[in-house]
Order: sequence, then C-alpha cells, then structure tokens
Amino acid sequence: MYAKIYSLRLKLLRVLKLQQNIQAIFEQVGFDKANADIIARMLSMSESKGIKSHGILRIPDYLDKISTGEINVKPNIKLIKESPGTGLLDADSTMGAIAATQAMSLAIDKARQVGTGMLGVRNSTHFGIGAFYSEMALEHNMIGFALTNSIPYVAPTGSSIPMLGTNPIAYAFPVKSGPPFSADFSTSSIAKGKLSLLQIEKRETPLNVVQDSEGKPTTDPSTLIKGGSILPLGGDIEHGGHKGYALASIVDILSGVLTSANFGMFANQQGSPNGSGIGHFLGAIKVDAFMDIEEFKNRMELWIDAIHSSPTTPGVEKVLIPGEIEWQQEQMHNEQGIEIDHKIIELLKESLQKYNISSDLINI
Amino acid sequence: MYAKIYSLRLKLLRVLKLQQNIQAIFEQVGFDKANADIIARMLSMSESKGIKSHGILRIPDYLDKISTGEINVKPNIKLIKESPGTGLLDADSTMGAIAATQAMSLAIDKARQVGTGMLGVRNSTHFGIGAFYSEMALEHNMIGFALTNSIPYVAPTGSSIPMLGTNPIAYAFPVKSGPPFSADFSTSSIAKGKLSLLQIEKRETPLNVVQDSEGKPTTDPSTLIKGGSILPLGGDIEHGGHKGYALASIVDILSGVLTSANFGMFANQQGSPNGSGIGHFLGAIKVDAFMDIEEFKNRMELWIDAIHSSPTTPGVEKVLIPGEIEWQQEQMHNEQGIEIDHKIIELLKESLQKYNISSDLINI
Repeated sequence: MYAKIYSLRLKLLRVLKLQQNIQAIFEQVGFDKANADIIARMLSMSESKGIKSHGILRIPDYLDKISTGEINVKPNIKLIKESPGTGLLDADSTMGAIAATQAMSLAIDKARQVGTGMLGVRNSTHFGIGAFYSEMALEHNMIGFALTNSIPYVAPTGSSIPMLGTNPIAYAFPVKSGPPFSADFSTSSIAKGKLSLLQIEKRETPLNVVQDSEGKPTTDPSTLIKGGSILPLGGDIEHGGHKGYALASIVDILSGVLTSANFGMFANQQGSPNGSGIGHFLGAIKVDAFMDIEEFKNRMELWIDAIHSSPTTPGVEKVLIPGEIEWQQEQMHNEQGIEIDHKIIELLKESLQKYNISSDLINI
Repeated sequence: MYAKIYSLRLKLLRVLKLQQNIQAIFEQVGFDKANADIIARMLSMSESKGIKSHGILRIPDYLDKISTGEINVKPNIKLIKESPGTGLLDADSTMGAIAATQAMSLAIDKARQVGTGMLGVRNSTHFGIGAFYSEMALEHNMIGFALTNSIPYVAPTGSSIPMLGTNPIAYAFPVKSGPPFSADFSTSSIAKGKLSLLQIEKRETPLNVVQDSEGKPTTDPSTLIKGGSILPLGGDIEHGGHKGYALASIVDILSGVLTSANFGMFANQQGSPNGSGIGHFLGAIKVDAFMDIEEFKNRMELWIDAIHSSPTTPGVEKVLIPGEIEWQQEQMHNEQGIEIDHKIIELLKESLQKYNISSDLINI
C-alpha cells in the first residue's frame, strides 16, 4: 500500500525514513549518533504532527548556527545543581532538543523517586516543539510539562514594544487509548508563522492580535518588522490580554530568570546580556503519587468522552481535545508517509550544498 | 490620621479590625479559632487587594452552605496519599480556604526537603482567591502556585455548552522589595462578575468573549442564564481561544481528575457525579534549589525594572507587573483602612440576622 502511494507521489516519505535522513545530516555536522537521533526524532515528530513550522524547515537555520558555533555539536552538558526533586542543567550551547530531552529524563527519574521532578535548563538553544518532551512522560504513566522562553515578539499589556517571547506551554496527560491529552501552545494571541503566511497571502490579521510601533491597533501582518508587536493571548485588556501577559511572564521567569538563562527582551540572544542562552523548564508528575494509574485513565476517559459528546457550534463536526488533530496527523503519516513540500526541499538543498552535506532527503 | 478619616467616612474599617470581625462570624457558626482566622485572613486579603467579588460579599453564600451542611465547620482533613514531593488531601467538605492553606503549608514543607512540593485537594469547596495561597510561598523564598476548578461557565472551543470552569491560575514569585510578581487570573476571556456588572448597567459585552446557547457570537451579558457560555481566554479560534480551552482543561485535570474531585461539567456540584467536591492543586518551588535566592531576587529586579521602564501604549502611564495594582491597593488599605459598600453591609446584615449571628461589622 505504501509503495503504491510512494510511486505516485514523489515527495512522500516514510516517517522512519525521514527520521533516518535527518539523523544522517546531523551526524555529518558532528553530533554523535545518540544526539543526532534525538534531533531527528524531534524534527520528524513535528512533521508527523503536521507542525511544519518546527520540522525540516528549521534545518537550514540550525545548520547556520552550527557553522558559526552558536550551536555546539560536542556539548558537555552539566548538572549544575541538584536536589531530590529538582535539577539545573547547563546545556553548553547545544541543540535545545538534546538538553531538554536529558532534562525531561532526569525529571522523570526524580518523579519516580519523590513523586514529582522539575528541571531547569540554561545556556540552551531553540528546543522545537514542547510536546516532544511533555509526551516523554506518558509511557512512564506520568504527566509531563515543558516550557521555554523565546525571541521577544510579544508586548506586555500597556507596553508598545515586544518584551516577551511567544513562550509556549506544553502539557501531556496519559490516557487509556486513543489520543493522549497533549496541549502545546504559545502564550501569544497569534503565532509568528501565521503572520508570515498572512503577509505572503497579502491578507490582514484579525483585529486585536497585533499592534503597531506606537501600541495602536493594526491589522498589518508585517507590523513586527516595523517595530510593532504581537499581543499576548487574549489581545487587549478588555478581552483578557493581561492574563496572556501574565502567562508569558510566568514562562519567562521559570525558564529564564530561575535558570540563569537570558530573559525578557534579551531572551534568545547571544553575548549573555543577562544570562546564558535560552532557558527551558520541564517537569514530570507521577500519577501514582496521587491515584492508581488505571483509575486516573478511567477518569481521563470520562473527561474526554464528555468533551467528545458535547453539542457543537455551527460548522463544527466534533469537539476535539487538545492535541487530537496532531495525533490524527501522526496516525495518518505513520500509515501513509509524509509529504514534503517541494519548496522546503529546495531550501534544504541549498543549505546542505552550502555546508557540503550529502543527503537522500533532497534526491527524492 | 486614621481616626480622622474614620470619623469622616462611616464605613471605613482598619484591615485588622475587618479581619477580626470576620473571624468572629465564622467562630460563631462553629469553626475553631485557628480555622476562622484562616477564612478571615483570606477574605480580608481579597478586600485589601480590591478584589471585592471574593471578599465580604461571599459571606452570605458561605453561611447558607454552612447551614445546609454543604460546608463542614468541624472538618477532619486527611492526608490520603503522600510521597516526599507530593500529597493528596481530603478536605472533608470544609471551607476551601482551610484545606488549601493546609495543602500549601505541606507543599512548602516538601519543597524545603526535596526542592518542590505539589499537593492535590479533593472534597473541598470554593477557595476564594488563589493569590492567598501562592503568596504563602514568598516568605519562605519559594515560588508558589495555586489552581482550582470551579462551576462550568466556559465552552471548550467548538462546543456550544459550558463544560469547564473559569479555572483560575495563581503564581507568585519572591522579589527584593516592592510588589511581588503575583498573577491570579481566570482562564476565561471575561470574569463572570464582569458579566453581572454589565447586565446591571444595561451594557453589552465586548465582541468575542461570550456566545449564545447555539454557540453563535453574542454581546448579551445575560447569555449565561439563557444557556450561553463564556469563551475561553482568547475568545474564538482565530484569536487563540483553543489555547484558553487547553489552559482551563489543564487546571481541571490537575485539580479535579487527578485528585478524585468532581471535574468538567460536574465541577462544583454536590452528590459526587464523578468525584468529591471541588478540587485544588497547589505547589511550591524552592528558589535555592535552582539558584542563590539573592541572585534570583536581583534578576527579578532586572526583569521588573525592564517592564516598568517600557514605553507605553497611548493613555497608559506605566506598564505594571501582574499583581501590582492589587499590591498598591493593599498598601493603601493598610494605611487608610477599607471602605465597605453600604449595599454589601445590608446584604451581610440580612444574612447574619437570618442565622442569629452578632457582628460589629454591620453596626458601623
């Protein structure tokens, strides 16, 4: 069945094949096999989930940062501080995926021992999708969460300039069967990628998601390059934007202030204006420390069934749980393979040629 | 100075006097002194912070629930499950303030031992303002958080009926001086209290904060009593409402599903449809487990100073940090006393007379 589709659609790749190809790229630039595997699994999970903004599209930027040394391919990740339930890692400027995976593993170990574990990470780089880490907890029958700070695009309520990142929150809860509850969302009212798309399509943004350089309302999707900002989740204060501002701040303080990473306006910058690199904050909670795991999964099923059987708003077929669309995409892609956009392949080809990296990925 | 103002404004009360008066009310209905003190401190903190919706105004409802036995005045709060970093309390249907205070104390003890502590609470009732508990962590140089589920008013994205509470999140971070970072916000786009106010004032709601019983947009502030719903933080999906839905869900699952409390549509109900009472989830993180507390406070000062010195949007004098307005109110009220609205005194008087409770509070 797969072969048949493959023969018809040139850019269709099996998920595993995609993952192997990505791994080979990162091995060629100097990562050891285990670390290249982590990066490849994170990027191919993004593709599988249909979050293309965090998939292959990111490879050229990662390679650029590897070539300048901003991303370290031979890291010496250190556990700087540790207590039975907490830890702080210095990522030694390596790929965020590597450091965050290590942090989440430690959080899971700690949760196994003392019921919950929280790991801070400093001196890190872009970690991709938070769900890759929060979902690591699921097979251990734990709840997982992953936060990170990021480039400031978001204006605090009342401010006319970007001072906070789109600072995402990911939370995953184990379930009996079917899609797990896996929420992964930025704390801004609109994604930066969405703005770029609207710009290309020459369309306006909805009202109340961005502001201009003076902090006035605008619907211009290119406002960011003109000194404007994205509004926090909620938009203006009348719609609860101050709550989105609080959320983005909580993520920034846990990920950046508490870890010695950069924070606020300096998040995601080089040269240590107020810390080291990007910061993450990850954690695990052992369900069994609160209730029998089977009971919890039964209760989650009740919770999910209630949502699924909810009457819908006009035009909506079924109410979904957070992460359900991405899970459906994963199922479909595992079955049918992933179709990679030709434009993305072209961008990747250019980047790989620049760094003399060979890959089957661009020959398909 | 206080005496002078007092003589001019009849309903002005010192904060401590207010607290003592509230404590006396709750002692008269059967709470022991220590528990009545907790309730009184929570309610007078709400008044001090200017959050009048969670202050004295709530007393008649609490007294009604005490008279029916829905709130238990002689609770036997039990620690059902415990690990070094976690615990689960059964509140024995007492006032949420009592159970949540006990849970937060335990979380702080656990964080002192293993770096972080998380406490679930089931079989509880309305806990008032989350900041009362999250701020308990501050004097211990810890970060505190408090979540609770609540009566379903919020529709999940795509659903035409309320299935989740306004499920608030409170987070407090210690600082060197001045206002602490203390965020306390519902995960809905508009507060229920705000809708009642708009209804009284015969004004419409902003667009994109509520929907009617079919899930269609409306600006009718009385939509809830007509089968409508509040939208999650963000409003519709175009403005990120699915993120607010995810947040409200995370709070519901941690507070309700994981604790054996009621959850989802049954949150805040009696008769155990899917658990016991309301659920809370509270936690503490020891800053010192990640970095020296003085260094953290210095970094928080940098974070806050950057926000304070941010250029503002038109009409805004200064960008504030979460909780700063409430802190300013507390300072002012501690200095000048609290003015209690005459209408609230009248409501309280009626309720106290109904239950034969004497109080100086209604004689001022």
